[in-house]
Amino acid sequence: MRANRLREIWATGKPATNFWLGLPCMLSAEIVGHQGWDSLTVDMQHGHIGFESMVAMLTAISSTASVPLVRVPWNAPGDVMRALDAGSYGVICPNVDTREQCERFIGSCRYAPQGYRSVGPKRAVLYGGADYIAKANDTVLAIVQVESALGLKNVGEIASVKGLDMIYIGPTDLALSLGRDIRAGLADSVLMKAIDEILAATRNAGIRSGIYCRNADDAKAMFAKGFDLATVTSDDALLAAGAAVAAKFR
Amino acid sequence: MRANRLREIWATGKPATNFWLGLPCMLSAEIVGHQGWDSLTVDMQHGHIGFESMVAMLTAISSTASVPLVRVPWNAPGDVMRALDAGSYGVICPNVDTREQCERFIGSCRYAPQGYRSVGPKRAVLYGGADYIAKANDTVLAIVQVESALGLKNVGEIASVKGLDMIYIGPTDLALSLGRDIRAGLADSVLMKAIDEILAATRNAGIRSGIYCRNADDAKAMFAKGFDLATVTSDDALLAAGAAVAAKFR
Amino acid sequence: MRANRLREIWATGKPATNFWLGLPCMLSAEIVGHQGWDSLTVDMQHGHIGFESMVAMLTAISSTASVPLVRVPWNAPGDVMRALDAGSYGVICPNVDTREQCERFIGSCRYAPQGYRSVGPKRAVLYGGADYIAKANDTVLAIVQVESALGLKNVGEIASVKGLDMIYIGPTDLALSLGRDIRAGLADSVLMKAIDEILAATRNAGIRSGIYCRNADDAKAMFAKGFDLATVTSDDALLAAGAAVAAKFR
Amino acid sequence: MRANRLREIWATGKPATNFWLGLPCMLSAEIVGHQGWDSLTVDMQHGHIGFESMVAMLTAISSTASVPLVRVPWNAPGDVMRALDAGSYGVICPNVDTREQCERFIGSCRYAPQGYRSVGPKRAVLYGGADYIAKANDTVLAIVQVESALGLKNVGEIASVKGLDMIYIGPTDLALSLGRDIRAGLADSVLMKAIDEILAATRNAGIRSGIYCRNADDAKAMFAKGFDLATVTSDDALLAAGAAVAAKFR
Amino acid sequence: MRANRLREIWATGKPATNFWLGLPCMLSAEIVGHQGWDSLTVDMQHGHIGFESMVAMLTAISSTASVPLVRVPWNAPGDVMRALDAGSYGVICPNVDTREQCERFIGSCRYAPQGYRSVGPKRAVLYGGADYIAKANDTVLAIVQVESALGLKNVGEIASVKGLDMIYIGPTDLALSLGRDIRAGLADSVLMKAIDEILAATRNAGIRSGIYCRNADDAKAMFAKGFDLATVTSDDALLAAGAAVAAKFR
Amino acid sequence: MRANRLREIWATGKPATNFWLGLPCMLSAEIVGHQGWDSLTVDMQHGHIGFESMVAMLTAISSTASVPLVRVPWNAPGDVMRALDAGSYGVICPNVDTREQCERFIGSCRYAPQGYRSVGPKRAVLYGGADYIAKANDTVLAIVQVESALGLKNVGEIASVKGLDMIYIGPTDLALSLGRDIRAGLADSVLMKAIDEILAATRNAGIRSGIYCRNADDAKAMFAKGFDLATVTSDDALLAAGAAVAAKFR
Repeated sequence: MRANRLREIWATGKPATNFWLGLPCMLSAEIVGHQGWDSLTVDMQHGHIGFESMVAMLTAISSTASVPLVRVPWNAPGDVMRALDAGSYGVICPNVDTREQCERFIGSCRYAPQGYRSVGPKRAVLYGGADYIAKANDTVLAIVQVESALGLKNVGEIASVKGLDMIYIGPTDLALSLGRDIRAGLADSVLMKAIDEILAATRNAGIRSGIYCRNADDAKAMFAKGFDLATVTSDDALLAAGAAVAAKFR
Repeated sequence: MRANRLREIWATGKPATNFWLGLPCMLSAEIVGHQGWDSLTVDMQHGHIGFESMVAMLTAISSTASVPLVRVPWNAPGDVMRALDAGSYGVICPNVDTREQCERFIGSCRYAPQGYRSVGPKRAVLYGGADYIAKANDTVLAIVQVESALGLKNVGEIASVKGLDMIYIGPTDLALSLGRDIRAGLADSVLMKAIDEILAATRNAGIRSGIYCRNADDAKAMFAKGFDLATVTSDDALLAAGAAVAAKFR
Repeated sequence: MRANRLREIWATGKPATNFWLGLPCMLSAEIVGHQGWDSLTVDMQHGHIGFESMVAMLTAISSTASVPLVRVPWNAPGDVMRALDAGSYGVICPNVDTREQCERFIGSCRYAPQGYRSVGPKRAVLYGGADYIAKANDTVLAIVQVESALGLKNVGEIASVKGLDMIYIGPTDLALSLGRDIRAGLADSVLMKAIDEILAATRNAGIRSGIYCRNADDAKAMFAKGFDLATVTSDDALLAAGAAVAAKFR
Repeated sequence: MRANRLREIWATGKPATNFWLGLPCMLSAEIVGHQGWDSLTVDMQHGHIGFESMVAMLTAISSTASVPLVRVPWNAPGDVMRALDAGSYGVICPNVDTREQCERFIGSCRYAPQGYRSVGPKRAVLYGGADYIAKANDTVLAIVQVESALGLKNVGEIASVKGLDMIYIGPTDLALSLGRDIRAGLADSVLMKAIDEILAATRNAGIRSGIYCRNADDAKAMFAKGFDLATVTSDDALLAAGAAVAAKFR
Repeated sequence: MRANRLREIWATGKPATNFWLGLPCMLSAEIVGHQGWDSLTVDMQHGHIGFESMVAMLTAISSTASVPLVRVPWNAPGDVMRALDAGSYGVICPNVDTREQCERFIGSCRYAPQGYRSVGPKRAVLYGGADYIAKANDTVLAIVQVESALGLKNVGEIASVKGLDMIYIGPTDLALSLGRDIRAGLADSVLMKAIDEILAATRNAGIRSGIYCRNADDAKAMFAKGFDLATVTSDDALLAAGAAVAAKFR
Repeated sequence: MRANRLREIWATGKPATNFWLGLPCMLSAEIVGHQGWDSLTVDMQHGHIGFESMVAMLTAISSTASVPLVRVPWNAPGDVMRALDAGSYGVICPNVDTREQCERFIGSCRYAPQGYRSVGPKRAVLYGGADYIAKANDTVLAIVQVESALGLKNVGEIASVKGLDMIYIGPTDLALSLGRDIRAGLADSVLMKAIDEILAATRNAGIRSGIYCRNADDAKAMFAKGFDLATVTSDDALLAAGAAVAAKFR
């Protein structure tokens, strides 16, 4: 089976870069796939990306060196399994607040006996290789987002669920849930304290940590803290900002 | 009928900005439509945009203030008419080398007696208004590209075709056709001489001039020369460049 | 943020009209959007409309004055949030039978602290404006359908859930659940009694009421009763009926 | 091979009804296919219907008794052949002005030795039957539109082209080309005289005649004149009119 | 209402053949629909088929004699109802482990009073007929998959749920859940014992039995055991195997 | 620039295998791309494949070792250039009958000074590499079909057009044009004589030869004759035949 390059990067002690895809467009996904990112996330939650666009985007990414990840809209086993069958090498599940929710998600990512993922990979075999079923449990990444006050409270239990590979932080939702002004971003001290707690929980549990950033400075700071993966920007944000700047050329 | 804002801008003596869309994606078109461009071109020639994506992108642009233009793949009456029926407020026809080719194109843009455009606007009426058929000939822009040695030779005749609104220059094709190294861009003196000839021909004919640029400096220089419209950048170029820069943040 | 015109209409004491969209077609949505309806519902439950068609239809409606609503297939947080992120100004949730189901739905419509909607609007910001996140909770409409015997029994509790804006009645499902002959339509007295109970519950709770009708006479009667919103007809019904009538012209 | 029901109807001496499809939507095509029309035209010229939507609409129509026709965007052999390969039982070619144009179109509709249609039917065999290639030349309808002053002048020559099955009149384009006010519709006497000439030409040539009408009264009048096929209305017209009327119910 | 041919076949005492569709392609579905299969399953779980492709595939199958079935991604009422509304004559629900899960699924397949399916068929009426609502409960098939150790333990309870028509076995998931080497296929004795138990449970309950096979020999063996339906192969498997064999022709 | 593996194979003196894709489906294209074919042809003429499906299929093929070719619907410069811009490594143009038609096609495949292809590759650069523009003229294949009596008569002139890489024979159209019974296939002696003439013409001109076959025996025979490329079968043919055989398993 094709190795998961994210696992390889981490094995060398380095953190990994991540780019966020929200446009339902296989061409833009392929373009970004050629720009040197360690991983790309096809965002089915807030991106306007339906099932078949997700599959098309994974197809486009398959001819690049970037590792394809999918964020599913919600913790629904059918959506998780379909993303994996289509060849995603990792799934990010939003809004996990409890150990039970985490277990349900992990189960949907793993074949028996570790979980209850149904057997029937299709593109996953084309991308991963003929031995996909035997090795998928050890290759694909199961990632949950802790991004609420309740999730923060339960982060130790969540982090300890067997089979979980990473906790990925959504700072905006977390800040809002903690009653903070989200416009402050990572500069908010209460938010940062929560982030530190989650990071510590991942270390205690021996799993990876990731976080959504909006610019390079924040990503660098998070790498300095010890995060294993940082998202730096997204296709729609780059396009909006770039087009706005260019429009003012006169 | 909704006025063509490009005609209004030019009536004030100002040049107009243009952004190029090559991604088959209505969401990215809508995002760019909100960034302050005078006009957007849906490029069906080199963009990977099929007929229904073009219609969808025009729909998305309709809720913004940017004027929608379409570049058709080739000088084919069916394609020209369909772009106009879908609500494009101008059509750019590539590779026009002769007066006859120009006349054929202009005819496909205009209802009788000025041309042979078939009656049957659909989105065009939703976007333009109930009096679309009566006023379309005076509102939508018919634009040809002169971008070859032969076109350059015939530019006077081409510019004089009745009903033509603008000659739009594709510098790369023009340079290649003139046997120049295209990597020099607008810095090539032979190319620039040709551009000046075409610009002069548009002035002689009393029509508008436009040109494809790849950055703000070139666009400013072309405005300084007197061009009425300059394309500054494109969605795929912005995305590739932005993603490449961001990937190097470490 | 762009105001919700439905709230503005109701503030003047008037009821609002609604048209139902079941065809997966952005062009038909745009055509109807120009015919003077206060609101349009993109029906993802019984219409054959997938996620990306829904987004396309919302895009098409954005250039009209009609308020876009979406009925989701079921009470699933991922679907509700995605409809809102795409710019729907209200979500209708089918088959809500209990207070708990209603709370779960309302939570998915509201950002913290009122709910658990995840932050990440995309088209919603293009359509609504840059202050979307701050004002969305007070602008978008959270609507549940009470359409079963159990829902009828619990209607008082359902109506009292904080954040609920409207109960929308599906008379056919309600009639069937009550064991009535659905062919009688609104003429069935048992059904009408149930409708009256639900209407009363909305008044007690100080929220809005809506109902699906199949013709103008029923809609007028429901307005006379005091309903705040009535659906009058749908694209597929109009097309089938119109085409059937026209076919008999000989 | 499945017989062409239009030929069967005409063999009984009756005229045939036609409905016009302009929405790119297989569901609306299927709905209309169940309402009793003799034939449906998928309009790729003025409808916003791309190639794959056309194929999907033909697929949907295949489960109904209505004969599927396609109007191509222009007189392009590739488009004509692809519509036939996809199972259309007739092709309408717009804007045919000369005998040569007609011959070019007819050639693209017929296998050798009658024409130069390339062999490779796909859905056409599923819909038509295993003997499709042998019988297609005698089954599918080749139809041209005469809708300009030049076409009118040449109508005798056009009508005499071997293999042509019908001349179909587009009254609006014809009126505009004749310099008439198109708002008068069929009430314009100059237009009507031209229509009569074309009708006479089809009779002289022993071929069928068809015409686009906008309502039942016009269609009845054209049947009374002897037309073999009349279009009565379209999906987008029905929907716009029906939705506009219904919106005024208050 | 159009009869369900699977019920008719079984009424004659014969088993039925089934073909599995995993390609998101209406043309391939239509091609297979013409090859003589009693039924076709549109697989939304492991096939890469989104909602609108599923509808398109059902549309394509509607012009053939094969009975259309849909396997939904998971036990979600919204997905089940939407497949039925689109004209599926049966729904297969994966991974049903308990009586409660089975009841939830059955309820979503049946109109009140037998269940809680919401009223609003669309293509279902075009395909099934005007009396669809009255007869659907007795026509469409509700099928669950028992494919885990837990499901096996509970198979008696599952089989006894009122309204269930068939248990369909997924041998691979079942084998994996039982800790077997899935490469052995049906040759594994522990798996076969489990299959026999499930088959016996369907007989005790007086319902139908079905099973996924990968070749004709297995399907014949399962028919010999008494299974009522056997899947024999799939589009993607046929294509991969056929293309691999053909590639070695030199 | 990525080398064209077909040119590499021929440089070793071996012929190349080709598989034909007619289903508009990126998943089936990707599956076939993994089965060991030297090249795949996306058939836009007789396959039911629109522009964006073609692009998607090229994207899917890009992750495999098979060389992607596209057959365009007709000899239209816009279609040829768009297939190349999307990353096709060769274009097959149907129905070329004269030297002039061949020259027109070759010109659309080559950048100046060899031709008039417009500069603007997009996926082509992602697939081919950053030096695409400089090397494309020597890498991509320009292929015409000779498949009519007229083409046969002119084959010497056609073969001598500078820049032509291959003549590809469509035996069915050629046989029909010669007045033969197409059911005889390659067993027809008149057809075979014509094939020999065309093959000889390619040798005289020093270009490659290719032919469409329907089975391995024919392909082997054509390789024995000296053809450089043979198509062996297609996705839709494999699927129809495979499904028909499998359906008869009882």
